Amino acid sequence: MTDTLTRSTPVKDGPPVPESALRTHSIGPFEFETGGRLPNVEIAYETWGTLNADRSNAVLILHALTGSTHVAATAADPEPGWWEGLVGPGRPLDTEKWFVLAPNMLGGCYGTTGPSSLDPDGSPWGSRFPFTTIRDSVRAEALLADVLGIERFHAVVGGSMGGARALEWAATFPDRVAGVAVIACGAHSTAEQIAFAQSQTAAIRLDPHFAGGDYYGGPAPEGGLGIARRIAHITYRSEAELQGRFGRSPQPGEDPFGAPVARGGRYQVESYLDHQAGKLARRFDANSYLVLTEALMSHDVGRGRGGEGAALAGVTARAFVAAVDSDRLYWPEQSQELARQLTGSASRAEGRDVPLHLINSPIGHDGFLTDLEQVYPELVQTLEL
Amino acid sequence: MTDTLTRSTPVKDGPPVPESALRTHSIGPFEFETGGRLPNVEIAYETWGTLNADRSNAVLILHALTGSTHVAATAADPEPGWWEGLVGPGRPLDTEKWFVLAPNMLGGCYGTTGPSSLDPDGSPWGSRFPFTTIRDSVRAEALLADVLGIERFHAVVGGSMGGARALEWAATFPDRVAGVAVIACGAHSTAEQIAFAQSQTAAIRLDPHFAGGDYYGGPAPEGGLGIARRIAHITYRSEAELQGRFGRSPQPGEDPFGAPVARGGRYQVESYLDHQAGKLARRFDANSYLVLTEALMSHDVGRGRGGEGAALAGVTARAFVAAVDSDRLYWPEQSQELARQLTGSASRAEGRDVPLHLINSPIGHDGFLTDLEQVYPELVQTLEL
Repeated sequence: MTDTLTRSTPVKDGPPVPESALRTHSIGPFEFETGGRLPNVEIAYETWGTLNADRSNAVLILHALTGSTHVAATAADPEPGWWEGLVGPGRPLDTEKWFVLAPNMLGGCYGTTGPSSLDPDGSPWGSRFPFTTIRDSVRAEALLADVLGIERFHAVVGGSMGGARALEWAATFPDRVAGVAVIACGAHSTAEQIAFAQSQTAAIRLDPHFAGGDYYGGPAPEGGLGIARRIAHITYRSEAELQGRFGRSPQPGEDPFGAPVARGGRYQVESYLDHQAGKLARRFDANSYLVLTEALMSHDVGRGRGGEGAALAGVTARAFVAAVDSDRLYWPEQSQELARQLTGSASRAEGRDVPLHLINSPIGHDGFLTDLEQVYPELVQTLEL
Repeated sequence: MTDTLTRSTPVKDGPPVPESALRTHSIGPFEFETGGRLPNVEIAYETWGTLNADRSNAVLILHALTGSTHVAATAADPEPGWWEGLVGPGRPLDTEKWFVLAPNMLGGCYGTTGPSSLDPDGSPWGSRFPFTTIRDSVRAEALLADVLGIERFHAVVGGSMGGARALEWAATFPDRVAGVAVIACGAHSTAEQIAFAQSQTAAIRLDPHFAGGDYYGGPAPEGGLGIARRIAHITYRSEAELQGRFGRSPQPGEDPFGAPVARGGRYQVESYLDHQAGKLARRFDANSYLVLTEALMSHDVGRGRGGEGAALAGVTARAFVAAVDSDRLYWPEQSQELARQLTGSASRAEGRDVPLHLINSPIGHDGFLTDLEQVYPELVQTLEL
C-alpha cells in the first residue's frame, strides 16, 4: 500500500508503520544541573524508519508536558499517535527517508527514569527525584543520541514543552542540530505560564494522598492531579471553543438547579473537565507532572548565556517557528518575538529570515496537536525534509 | 471642608464620610430558589448620605465575589473602600444628594448570614447552608430594601459579580430600578467562567481540612482557598501585566535553581500569588467562597424567562454597561453583547441607545476596581446622578 503514498500527497490516516516498539537505553549515572544525581538513567524511545549508514537522516521529535514517545502508530502499537499525520511513509517526515526518534523526557512516566522509577534498593524515587530543568532533559537526550551513534540531527522538532526542548537543543548543541522547529512555545516561560503552573503544582501537593511525594504503594493523589489538569486544559483551549461547545448547557441528566443544599448537578463544561481530569489521572504519574511542570517553568534559553539575544545568536540551525493564532497560554506574540530574535541569529548570515507561521485554529493552544498539518508545507521546506 | 467640594470637581481622596458603621437587619425566614430554607437571614450593610423624606434618593451598590459592604471610607471605618472614589461628597455618588446602600451578599462572610453563621442551636450552618443563586441574593436584598422603606432605587450599581446582581435586579424588579450599571459582567456566566470556577471549588473541597464543609472549630481549609485565589487572581489580571511586573524574576533572596531536589526558590510571580492567597485566606471564609462562586456560576438573566432577549426586553431602567478592554475573564465582547441586547430593550422605547463604555486599563478584569473613574462622567450622565 505504501507505494501509492508520495510526499506530495501526504495523508493523515495511513497504515501503521512497521517500526519499533518502546525501547529503553541506559545513559548511565546522571548529574543534574542544580546538583541532583541519579546512579542510572534510562531513556525510553520509539523510532520510525531506518538510520542510514552515515547516520545523517535522524530527526528528533520531543513531546509536550503529558505527551509520550508515541508520535505515530507503529505495528507494535497501532494506537494513533499525538502527531499521527507527521510521521510515516508519504508524510512530511517520510519514513522511507528519515529515521525518527522520539524519547520520553527525563522525569516522565512513559518509560524514562522518573519519580516512579525504582532506586537501586527497589524503592520509587518519589520525593527524592532531583529537580530537573529543560537543560537537564536535553543533555540526557544528547547522551541517548551518543548511545545510538547519532552525532547530528537533521532536525529537532517539538511543540509546547517539546518546543522548549527543541530550542534548548539548538542553543546548547549548535553543531548537532541542522534544523529546529519550535511550535507553540517562546524563548522562555512567562510570568503567566509560571503562575498557572504554580497553581497546578500546589493542587497536587495539597492532595491528602500526596504524602510529600512518597505515595507509591498507597492511593495516588488523583484529586490534585485532576485539578491541575482542569486548570491546564482550560488554558489549552480558547474561550470561544469552550463557549461554542458547551455554553451554559447542563450535563444531560443533571440539573445544576435541582437540589436545595449541595448544588444539584453539573454544567456540561464541568463534566467535560471532570472527564479530562480523570483520563489524565489514570494515565499519568502526579510526581512526573510536578517534575515536568517545574522543568517547563525553568525554560529560559537566555539564562546564563548573556540573555536571549546572545543565546539565540549562537543558533546555527535552520529555524521554523509556528504558533496557534487563538493560543492564550503560549501567545503568538511570544513566538513572533522568538522568530524575530532567530532572524537576527546565525541563520541570518545564511540569508534566511525566520517568519512566524500561524496555525489557524479556533481551539487554542491544543491546535498545535490537532492542526499542525496546516504548516506541513512550510515545515518541509524550511527544514529541508 | 466638604463645602469646597462640588460635583464638577470630583476628588478621589476626600475626608472620610461620617456615615454608618456596619449595621445588620433581619429579613426573617428565607426560602431559597432551589428549595433550601433558613429560619432567619440577616443582611449586613453600610450606608452613606441620608435617605430623603420621599425615599427617592437611594442608590444600591453591589460587591464582587470577595468584596464587602465597604465601598468607601466612613468615620466608623476610615479604611479606604473598594470603590473609594465613587461615593462621598463631591464624588459621582455625591452623598450630599444620594443615600448609598451597600449590602453584603447572602452567603457571604462580612456580616450577612452565610455558612459560618450560627443556626438556632448555635452551630455554624457549614455544609447545610443552602445552594444560593444570584436571584436568591437579589430577592434577599429586595427584602432588606423593604425593611428600610426603599420602594425604588434611583440606581443599582455593581461590577463583576456585583454586575450580575445589578442586572438581575433590573430584570426581576423593573419597577424598583430606575437606573442600572453593569460593569465588567455579561448577561450570563460563560463556559470559561464556569470552568475556572469549578477548578477553584474543587481545590477548596480537596483540602484535607475542608471536612465536607464542617471545618469550623478546626483548622480552616486555607490551602484550598489559597489555590482558588491563585487561579482567580491570574484570571483577574492580564498576561501583559504579569509579564511586565514580574517576568521571570526570582523572588529576592530566593533562587529557583538553588537546590538539588525540591526546587530551590520561587519566582517573583509565585511569591506574589502566595501573598494574594494568604491575604484572602485570612480575610475570607472558604464556605462563603464556595457559595458565592456557585452563585456566580448560576448567573443567567435569561433563565426561565424565555431567553436573554425576552428577559432584557423587560428592563426599563436607564442602563449603563462598561467593560475593561484587557479583561480576559469577563471579555468586553460579552458586555458588548449585553449592551446590544439592552439597546433593544424597553430603554430603547425612550430613545436611549446603550453603548459599551470601555475602561482602558492594562491590568485586566481588576481594572473595574482600579480604573472606574475613567467612566465616571458617562456613569453620572447615564444614571442621571
